[in-house]
Amino acid sequence: MDCKITLIPGDGIGPEIVAEAVKVLNAVADKYGHKFDYTKILMGGCSIDECGVPLTDEAVAIAKASDAVLLGAVGGNVGNSRWYDVAPDLRPEAGLLKIRKDLELFANIRPAYLYNELKAACPLKEEIIGDGFDMVIMRELTGGLYFGKRHTEEVDGLMTAVDTLTYNEEEIRRIAIKGFEIAMKRRKKVTSVDKANVLDSSRLWRKIVHEVAKDYPEVELEDMLVDNCAMQLVMNPGQFDVILTENMFGDILSDEASMITGSIGMLSSASLGKTKLGLYEPSHGSAPDIAGKNIANPIATILSAAMMLRYSLDLDKEADAIEAAVAAVLKEGYRTTDIYSEGCTKVGTDKMGDLIAERV
Amino acid sequence: MDCKITLIPGDGIGPEIVAEAVKVLNAVADKYGHKFDYTKILMGGCSIDECGVPLTDEAVAIAKASDAVLLGAVGGNVGNSRWYDVAPDLRPEAGLLKIRKDLELFANIRPAYLYNELKAACPLKEEIIGDGFDMVIMRELTGGLYFGKRHTEEVDGLMTAVDTLTYNEEEIRRIAIKGFEIAMKRRKKVTSVDKANVLDSSRLWRKIVHEVAKDYPEVELEDMLVDNCAMQLVMNPGQFDVILTENMFGDILSDEASMITGSIGMLSSASLGKTKLGLYEPSHGSAPDIAGKNIANPIATILSAAMMLRYSLDLDKEADAIEAAVAAVLKEGYRTTDIYSEGCTKVGTDKMGDLIAERV
Ligand SMILES: CC(C)[C@H](C(=O)O)[C@@H](O)C(=O)O
Ligand SMILES: CC(C)[C@H](C(=O)O)[C@@H](O)C(=O)O
Repeated sequence: MDCKITLIPGDGIGPEIVAEAVKVLNAVADKYGHKFDYTKILMGGCSIDECGVPLTDEAVAIAKASDAVLLGAVGGNVGNSRWYDVAPDLRPEAGLLKIRKDLELFANIRPAYLYNELKAACPLKEEIIGDGFDMVIMRELTGGLYFGKRHTEEVDGLMTAVDTLTYNEEEIRRIAIKGFEIAMKRRKKVTSVDKANVLDSSRLWRKIVHEVAKDYPEVELEDMLVDNCAMQLVMNPGQFDVILTENMFGDILSDEASMITGSIGMLSSASLGKTKLGLYEPSHGSAPDIAGKNIANPIATILSAAMMLRYSLDLDKEADAIEAAVAAVLKEGYRTTDIYSEGCTKVGTDKMGDLIAERV
Repeated sequence: MDCKITLIPGDGIGPEIVAEAVKVLNAVADKYGHKFDYTKILMGGCSIDECGVPLTDEAVAIAKASDAVLLGAVGGNVGNSRWYDVAPDLRPEAGLLKIRKDLELFANIRPAYLYNELKAACPLKEEIIGDGFDMVIMRELTGGLYFGKRHTEEVDGLMTAVDTLTYNEEEIRRIAIKGFEIAMKRRKKVTSVDKANVLDSSRLWRKIVHEVAKDYPEVELEDMLVDNCAMQLVMNPGQFDVILTENMFGDILSDEASMITGSIGMLSSASLGKTKLGLYEPSHGSAPDIAGKNIANPIATILSAAMMLRYSLDLDKEADAIEAAVAAVLKEGYRTTDIYSEGCTKVGTDKMGDLIAERV
């Protein structure tokens, strides 16, 4: 198969970890007889430096014309100015928001999984971990506070800032369907998270999610308030299969969920829309402090590449092969610094990529 | 001293735990020669049953005319209707939102503290707990998404719901000042939490907080994004002294913070405004499932009563006495079910109240 893949190395550790994912993808191409054509585009701080904006329309056009997009990470400071003083459209993260919107990637899937081999890194006690946990956060990605109208103006002599949280039934329905679909392939449980005791948007959310649920009688649906969910993730993470939630709650809860695994360097993510075209990126950030030191963990990006094969390119067997290679390398005891524990073999970013590529 | 205290027993376990707090307050009155006059008002489900609304204006007037308000908890189902189908103004929680707004209680203080005696209940591993943690969440309580304009209407044939997140500089300034003031009495560190890479309201928040910080040169100020904060609470809670944040973020983060202590039945809270009049309540909810069984933990409410003595009635010595009595009872090994561990003495709600009252 011939596939056009857009690569966005981005900022910080982005270029290093994307390079390792490409190494693994090339091993897959060799073994299974595919041809992956890569085109690199700029996004984030590097695009600001080169083009003056965090993402150009030309770059978006390239991404749109491809089969899938693989992203490292964007972010970091813009020169020396404190970044909250920089115009919002000129911050690195604005590139990420723009590509999500321009590609209509409304469904963000973030698995949070406790690796058996990495239990030592999990911040939770044994008795809380219990039989382990394996959940997926299905976060709405193109609506809510992120994309509502906003402005700051003087009202009665006081600077006043307004953000708007808007959802319509269609935006809720399409993400709910994605949530139930993925639950059908998993343990058939959806926890829909909202703040329906306060927000109108949450009440509409709840209503539509319950309507969609009627089409999935096998799936157990539970409503949970966002504050309670933030607690439950810490006290009893094993109860969750699919957490379905809106954009801002999903931002907060998915980070909390990935942190309780203790392995944020291992967690992949996919952002999907109506078409097959998706964006794949690690759940972690650009970590500028460790950039260029060959110590970043490339596994989250490599597993994101596996998700890309599965969701955008329909190459399930190949995705399985990458996941199995990662599992093998962990089993053999290889670890990057972030997941290292005694008795294991510490390896750098590039070596980790080599090891996984060899085992594909 | 003569003090007028409004009691709101509320729903679920509310009446039981308030009764124990009153027991302890009476012991304080006896010992220190004060006179506490109590007036009970209805709020929540019980008010809906009796008056048709979760909080009447008459009840608010009584609260306003008193020196302080002590609340148990409100909430639970309204009859048999699924509560999200109930008009928002007719849900028990609406009473809580109304009293916060009517009394202008803009500053919600929620301590999250790891009790040495209760380390066993903490869900985090020893190496994460480290030297323990002791933080305070300062949550803005009368602005943001909670009190912004909202509506649901059909737009282009689609049901569309809108909530508004508004803050003006004055609303931010007054809560920031409270945050820095409390930090001055503690470890002099403020972590201001926002989502300034996305929200206009967060950018204004950050700007004003930095302005206020200039008046407190001794206090270290750090900005943190809300998603990162949700992670840091799990990975390194010991770094926090005062977390200063807006209403919705504070709702989520304070619940997460209280859960990582493993002792949500122990955590008090205070809601303060411009005057001395404050509202004091446990951080936990109404727990209808255990109501009337004499197993609820009254300590959070008793410690809320101590906060009331300190912040609204200027009775510091008396507040100290309650806190010392609680510490003594814990040291002697008495525990309610929720915090019980082997080798301790299990006691019921009323016995726990007796023990603390005796030790005042
Ligand atoms: C960088 C930021 C705008 C972004 C978000 O909030 O969505 C990030 O936190 C994420 O979760 O992908
Ligand atoms: C009951 C609810 C409206 C309330 C809130 O969200 O503020 C509660 O969760 C709290 O934190 O006191």
